[in-house]
Amino acid sequence: MSYQVISEGSVTSPAGFVAAAVVCGLKESGNLDLAVICSEKECAAGGVFTRNQVAAAPVILDRAVLASGREHIRGIVANAGNANACTGEAGLAAARQTQEEAAALLDCRPEQILLLSTGIIGQQLPAGKISNGLRIATKELSSDGGRQLAQAIMTTDTRPKQLAVEVALPQGTVTIGAVAKGSGMIHPNMATMLGVVTTDAAVPAGALQALLSAVVERTFNRISVDGDTSTNDTVLLLANGASGQRVDDGISSSLFAEALEYVCAELAKMIVRDGEGASKFVELQVSGAADAQAAHAVAQTVATSPLVKTALAGGDPNWGRILAAAGRAGVALDQTCLALWIANPGRRPMQLVNNGSPTGYAEQEAAVIFARPEILIRLDLGQGEAGDTMWTTDLTRDYVTINADYRT
Amino acid sequence: MSYQVISEGSVTSPAGFVAAAVVCGLKESGNLDLAVICSEKECAAGGVFTRNQVAAAPVILDRAVLASGREHIRGIVANAGNANACTGEAGLAAARQTQEEAAALLDCRPEQILLLSTGIIGQQLPAGKISNGLRIATKELSSDGGRQLAQAIMTTDTRPKQLAVEVALPQGTVTIGAVAKGSGMIHPNMATMLGVVTTDAAVPAGALQALLSAVVERTFNRISVDGDTSTNDTVLLLANGASGQRVDDGISSSLFAEALEYVCAELAKMIVRDGEGASKFVELQVSGAADAQAAHAVAQTVATSPLVKTALAGGDPNWGRILAAAGRAGVALDQTCLALWIANPGRRPMQLVNNGSPTGYAEQEAAVIFARPEILIRLDLGQGEAGDTMWTTDLTRDYVTINADYRT
Repeated sequence: MSYQVISEGSVTSPAGFVAAAVVCGLKESGNLDLAVICSEKECAAGGVFTRNQVAAAPVILDRAVLASGREHIRGIVANAGNANACTGEAGLAAARQTQEEAAALLDCRPEQILLLSTGIIGQQLPAGKISNGLRIATKELSSDGGRQLAQAIMTTDTRPKQLAVEVALPQGTVTIGAVAKGSGMIHPNMATMLGVVTTDAAVPAGALQALLSAVVERTFNRISVDGDTSTNDTVLLLANGASGQRVDDGISSSLFAEALEYVCAELAKMIVRDGEGASKFVELQVSGAADAQAAHAVAQTVATSPLVKTALAGGDPNWGRILAAAGRAGVALDQTCLALWIANPGRRPMQLVNNGSPTGYAEQEAAVIFARPEILIRLDLGQGEAGDTMWTTDLTRDYVTINADYRT
Repeated sequence: MSYQVISEGSVTSPAGFVAAAVVCGLKESGNLDLAVICSEKECAAGGVFTRNQVAAAPVILDRAVLASGREHIRGIVANAGNANACTGEAGLAAARQTQEEAAALLDCRPEQILLLSTGIIGQQLPAGKISNGLRIATKELSSDGGRQLAQAIMTTDTRPKQLAVEVALPQGTVTIGAVAKGSGMIHPNMATMLGVVTTDAAVPAGALQALLSAVVERTFNRISVDGDTSTNDTVLLLANGASGQRVDDGISSSLFAEALEYVCAELAKMIVRDGEGASKFVELQVSGAADAQAAHAVAQTVATSPLVKTALAGGDPNWGRILAAAGRAGVALDQTCLALWIANPGRRPMQLVNNGSPTGYAEQEAAVIFARPEILIRLDLGQGEAGDTMWTTDLTRDYVTINADYRT
C-alpha cells in the first residue's frame, strides 16, 4: 500500500487548506452549524451530485459553477440545519447571496465558491444568520479548522466522520483529507450525504472529475441506510497543488486513485456504521450475476428491503427474505441456482442455501452469527461472473423513533 | 349502484360453494391453519400471481394448472404457517401430493385443485400434517365454512378480511364473495397477499381472467405496507354458475365488473388498515403526470419511502420528504411545478406547496391534520393529465418489532 493514515487527520491536513466553523443559529441545539473551507491557491475541482429531480439550491448552483469553470475554486461554504431545498427562487437567491458574501470576505469571485447545505427541507435559508456567521468564520480560518468543520456539518449524525492519508508517489508525498456527514436518507445516489475531499496534489481538473466519479460509484454509491435519496447529496474534491507534486502519469495516477478510493470507502462505511438507529453493519456481496447491472440491482434490492433489514435487527437468520428480495429486483433469476453464505469469522463461511433450498445448516450456530454486530452475507445467483458489494444496516425501532420526530 | 353488501358475507355466500378449516399443526399458536374451499359444480377460474422471480411451489403449480385448463376447477387448498417457498424439488413434490390427496378426497382430478400457501419461507411442508388435516377438513365442508377459512389463512393479520355482495344484473341476482390475508410484505405485485374471490355467476374463463387482471391492477396492486413483494402472492377467482345467471353481455359485464372492483378495493384497503404496526391509513393521489406510468412510479416511490412513512408515524407534516421521494422516482420532473395538498375534512384541502415552494400555510393546523388516523394527500406534478392512487400506511416502531421477531 502506498498510503498511510494520518492520526487526527481532517480536510485541513493537506497543505494550503484552512477552515473554520461557527454557530450561526441554524440548529436549534446551538451546535456548530456553519463552516468555511478555503484554499490559499486556486483548486481544480470535481463534484458528484444527487440524481434526485428535486435538487436543492446549493446543488443547482454548484453544478453551474463547475460547468462554467473547474480550475479556479477557492472555497466551500457548508451549513447544517437547513437544506435550502424546495425553496424556489427565494432559495436560489439566498444561495447566491451566500456565495457573493463569502467571495467578498475571501477576496475572490463568487464563481470560485461552492456551497453545501443539509437539514430540513422547505424552509427558507435565514440570510442574516448566514451573513453574520460568514463574517466570523472567515476571520477564524486555520489549518486546525478541519475537525470543527466535521462537527458543523452533522445533522442526525452521532459522531464526526473524517480521515486523512499520506500518499507516497514516486516523486514525493501528497496528502488527501476528507470529511463526510450522513446518517439518514443514505442510499446510492448519496442521500443526505455531504462529502468534501481535499488534496495538495496537483491534478488536472478533467482527470480529477473522472477519478471522483469512478470512486464515488464504488464507495458512496454502494451504501444504503434507508433507501431514500436526498435533494442535497454532494461530494466535492478540491486539489490545490500546494505539495508541488503532480499526479499526471500512469503510476502516480493509479497510486493516487487507490488512496482516494480507500479514503472514500472508509468514510462511506463510517456513514453506514452511524446510520440512524443502526445496530449492525452488514456487507452484502452478490456474485454469479449475468452482468454488473444485474448484480447491482439485486444487491440494492436486498440491501434496502425492510423485511431483510428488520430480520437483521432481530438477529433472525431469516434467509428466505433475502432470496425473496432478490426475486423482486427486476432481474431474471433461476431460483434453483441460488446459493447463500454467511461469513463465520475464524471458520469457513456457513452455507445456508444451495440450489435455492436450505442446506442442513445448524440453525443455532446461524443464529449466533446473525446476532453479531458485523455481518457478511454472500448471495450467488449462479448465472455468470459479475458481482457487486453493498454496505447496509439493520432497520431498528430507533430508526423509526429518530425519523418520526426529526422535524417537529 | 347495482350491488349491496351482504351482512356476515364470506367466500361461501355465493351459491354452490362450501368450505372448512382445521388445525393441522403448521402454526405454533395452535390456531386454524389449513382450509379447503370447494364448488359442487366445476368453475371457470382466473389467477393473478406474484411477479417475484423466486416463486413458491403453490404459485408454480397454480400457474401450470391454469395454463392447461381454466374451465374445470373444483377447489382450493390453502394453508398458513408455511409458505412452501425456497423449498426446491421437495417443496414441489409436497405441493403435488397435497393436490393429489385433496383431489382424491373431493372426488376429482388433481388438475382441478389449486393451492395457496403463506407463512415462513424455506421450511419443507410437513406432508403428514397436511394429509391428516385434509381428511378432516373435507368431511366438514359446509356453506358456513367461509368465515373459518378467513381465520385459517391469517399470519400476522390481526383480523380476518372478507366481504360478499349481491349484484343485481338485468336478468337476475348473482353473489360475489371474497377473502384475503395480508399484512406485512404488502406491496404492488401483491406481497404475501392471498385472495380468493368466488361467484355463482357464469362467466366465460377468458373474460374472467381479463376482468380479474384489470381489477387487481387497480386494487391489490395499489397498496403498499413495506415495499416488499413476496414469493407467494396469489389472487384466484372462481365462477361456478350456480346462480344460473350468465355474465356475457355488455351490461351485465360492466355491472359485474363494478361490483368485483368494489369487493377487491375494500379488501385491499382492509389489508392496508391491518398493515403490520400501522397506525395510519394514507391515500396518496398523484395528479398532473405526463402519463400513467410516470404517475404510478411517483405514487409508488412516495408510498414506500421510509422517510415519508416514519414522518407519517410521527404526525409530522414533513412534506419536503414527499417531494424528495417524488424526485427520485426515476421520472423527469420540474420541481418548480410541484404542488401538494392535504385533505381537511369538512373544509377545503390545505395547500402546503405551490410551484415547488411552501405556501404560507398554518403549521399548527397542518400538524393537526397529519396527526389524524386517516390522511389523504394529493401531489400534482404540473406536467399533464395522468394520475394514480395508492393506499399506504405509516412505518412505526411496531412494524419493526413484528418483523424483527417474526420467525424465531
